Amino acid sequence: MTRTAVYPGTFDPVTYGHLDVIKRVAALYDKVYVAVAHSAEKGVLFSVEERVAMIKQEVSGYDNVEVTDFEGLVVDFARNKSARVVVRGLRMISDFEYEFQMALTNRKLDPKVETVFMMPNESYSYLSSKLIKEIVGMGADASPFIPKNVEQKLKEKLKR
Amino acid sequence: MTRTAVYPGTFDPVTYGHLDVIKRVAALYDKVYVAVAHSAEKGVLFSVEERVAMIKQEVSGYDNVEVTDFEGLVVDFARNKSARVVVRGLRMISDFEYEFQMALTNRKLDPKVETVFMMPNESYSYLSSKLIKEIVGMGADASPFIPKNVEQKLKEKLKR
Amino acid sequence: MTRTAVYPGTFDPVTYGHLDVIKRVAALYDKVYVAVAHSAEKGVLFSVEERVAMIKQEVSGYDNVEVTDFEGLVVDFARNKSARVVVRGLRMISDFEYEFQMALTNRKLDPKVETVFMMPNESYSYLSSKLIKEIVGMGADASPFIPKNVEQKLKEKLKR
Amino acid sequence: MTRTAVYPGTFDPVTYGHLDVIKRVAALYDKVYVAVAHSAEKGVLFSVEERVAMIKQEVSGYDNVEVTDFEGLVVDFARNKSARVVVRGLRMISDFEYEFQMALTNRKLDPKVETVFMMPNESYSYLSSKLIKEIVGMGADASPFIPKNVEQKLKEKLKR
Amino acid sequence: MTRTAVYPGTFDPVTYGHLDVIKRVAALYDKVYVAVAHSAEKGVLFSVEERVAMIKQEVSGYDNVEVTDFEGLVVDFARNKSARVVVRGLRMISDFEYEFQMALTNRKLDPKVETVFMMPNESYSYLSSKLIKEIVGMGADASPFIPKNVEQKLKEKLKR
Amino acid sequence: MTRTAVYPGTFDPVTYGHLDVIKRVAALYDKVYVAVAHSAEKGVLFSVEERVAMIKQEVSGYDNVEVTDFEGLVVDFARNKSARVVVRGLRMISDFEYEFQMALTNRKLDPKVETVFMMPNESYSYLSSKLIKEIVGMGADASPFIPKNVEQKLKEKLKR
Repeated sequence: MTRTAVYPGTFDPVTYGHLDVIKRVAALYDKVYVAVAHSAEKGVLFSVEERVAMIKQEVSGYDNVEVTDFEGLVVDFARNKSARVVVRGLRMISDFEYEFQMALTNRKLDPKVETVFMMPNESYSYLSSKLIKEIVGMGADASPFIPKNVEQKLKEKLKR
Repeated sequence: MTRTAVYPGTFDPVTYGHLDVIKRVAALYDKVYVAVAHSAEKGVLFSVEERVAMIKQEVSGYDNVEVTDFEGLVVDFARNKSARVVVRGLRMISDFEYEFQMALTNRKLDPKVETVFMMPNESYSYLSSKLIKEIVGMGADASPFIPKNVEQKLKEKLKR
Repeated sequence: MTRTAVYPGTFDPVTYGHLDVIKRVAALYDKVYVAVAHSAEKGVLFSVEERVAMIKQEVSGYDNVEVTDFEGLVVDFARNKSARVVVRGLRMISDFEYEFQMALTNRKLDPKVETVFMMPNESYSYLSSKLIKEIVGMGADASPFIPKNVEQKLKEKLKR
Repeated sequence: MTRTAVYPGTFDPVTYGHLDVIKRVAALYDKVYVAVAHSAEKGVLFSVEERVAMIKQEVSGYDNVEVTDFEGLVVDFARNKSARVVVRGLRMISDFEYEFQMALTNRKLDPKVETVFMMPNESYSYLSSKLIKEIVGMGADASPFIPKNVEQKLKEKLKR
Repeated sequence: MTRTAVYPGTFDPVTYGHLDVIKRVAALYDKVYVAVAHSAEKGVLFSVEERVAMIKQEVSGYDNVEVTDFEGLVVDFARNKSARVVVRGLRMISDFEYEFQMALTNRKLDPKVETVFMMPNESYSYLSSKLIKEIVGMGADASPFIPKNVEQKLKEKLKR
Repeated sequence: MTRTAVYPGTFDPVTYGHLDVIKRVAALYDKVYVAVAHSAEKGVLFSVEERVAMIKQEVSGYDNVEVTDFEGLVVDFARNKSARVVVRGLRMISDFEYEFQMALTNRKLDPKVETVFMMPNESYSYLSSKLIKEIVGMGADASPFIPKNVEQKLKEKLKR
């Protein structure tokens, strides 16, 4: 039996924190879908195609990880992929509350899909895509927070 | 002496969590005003008239509950209605902080109006009008979260 | 109809924060029982008789407040007094979690008793009986935190 | 490949919240060890043998669940059972902090063992073994919180 | 050696809480820069010049406090002013999380700049520029929250 | 003018997290007193002499750091040392609440002593003396958490 997990998110852009979670999920499941949400499109900096492409480049070393965009409910996506598990990273208290709300709502929508939470490495516990975009916009060196490729794309995007 | 309470909110739209709080307040006070705020109008999906109407339909069974819109400060509304008490539902930590800030500010504005907090049933502790709008927009069945009538209006609104 | 509320606690000893809550409850209800718990007896500094006596002295000005000890479940005490409401003060996040747990448990034990939360004045939001006992034991002047009479009794108790 | 998970705890005594987590873990893994800790022995009401026996009785319907006591580090137990995963239930913010601290410490002790968090049903989110012991000691009916068998054993234990 | 601290913020507008922190920082350091951020400009009510001017008027009594606008990273501003310390006020849990995230990010950007946190007087712990703008917009008397001059400017601004 | 800070605590035993805070305080102040509290003596594993000695060994490289035991109120100790500042490390939300309570109480006891909060390196954010004692008691290798010398003393102490 293939154990499949979905790791959904906005990833605008992907950080070392997200990549650390992907590494951990990939080690525990046969197949992992990194599912990049369309839905938040209006507030995002990168298009969903750009966000998918940036993650693909970073996870090319994992045979069992597939990166794809998705629209609609996470539980529907999970069911379509025969995934029993949705993985979410937990970093902070404020994550915790929103994540619980989301997970309990998803459980009501489909009780057969279980949400499990994993922790990124503590070195990445404070990383936030939003904060990274702010400081790169102010000229900061973001190499401790995001991969080189992502940083370059972020700088180009913010220059325009 | 008539004991009057005000239960203010945005109710965009009303959920089973709100209705559970209304039921509890109605059992403790002689008269309850469910006060639907104009103020957040720009960020809301339903007009204040629509929001008032949806709640009215659900609370028609309570003799001592009156649903009305209001503009301006909650403490002024309370004073006009001779209400000593403003009731707020508490579900989560993040509620807690904002609610305390608001309650302490209101106390400064009018020390004679007291804010009291009540808990909805734990089955509704994770309900959020915002999240419900998101998932209904993605095609989810919202019947565990909001009354049938509200769900129908929400679907119509999101279709446009 | 008489509106009765119970304000239960350990009060070891009573602080200005507790007294501020009592004042607020007394203004909203016809009758208030300040219910001093036996149950925590082993970990307390003052006997339940001493704790009751100290509160009585401070609330003698309120006609509708009665101070009494109690054993057993709060919901049983409330029912015996025909009180529909149990009041608890909320100061901090950690209060919040324990209080919610307690309130939801009490609701399961007797759904007809409702727990409502009130906030003390923000000047008392940081007061803790435990901390006050510690610092008075180290020789601090506790007059900003507890009534004169209570401070004197606390000093005598800690001297022995 | 057998997927094995460890669900460690004190279980003093087991509640419907714990049993709900066991059900969820059993659905996601080939083999689950419910690992009952000796270590907290001095503060516990039931002996480790009693705690193991009470859980065994409740989980007899699951083929892939084994209940056992353990001493020492959870990561050592997990390694001995060839388990890659330690499961913990998350209910509240205060859980969250202690659990993170524990999980990050365990990760340092053995990076190959991953801690994942799952949520019990929201109806059990407020259950606490400690609180249940308190209220049963005061004569409360604990049937909404713990299985009949456990309740009976708890009453016997508290009578002595 | 001159000890220099930077107290950065948006100050839209300055409240008694901010002024209380400035008083405390001014007592501990030889030189304090109150640094008013351009960056949030789009979401602010007052221009950066107006915000600087309102603070200047309130802190004219302190010889060692200089109010100035700044653009870009706080750590760069601090380095330019030879300041080793960035001061932030902490009021609530939600502050705490964002502030930690920001402080750890800043530490990565420049490990020689240290963020230290101070508490305003508890009477100001609930003050929020955002909430004050809301209630003044609804006609509230804001004199317990902001200086007279600031209140007048806020009323003019909201009238337009 | 000499800038003096007090860094008080129980340090039972000192961890890399505490040492990281000491390093940061030592860089910001002319003189730092690491003040080891007698008061918690009954619940501690190491005597105050042992705790002082273990810290001294680790901070011998800092000219401006003095390690000493103290009894009584922190604010009295600070005043005796002419220190205007008490430094506390903040790691987690639960720290935050207790620390605020303590700091506001201390401010009432002596308004001239200011409490400032600093963050340890995020790698140490999850370290807890209590947890370390537990896991070393179970045979764990504590070298990522505490200095070699401290670990050896802890093992000896726990063996007895």
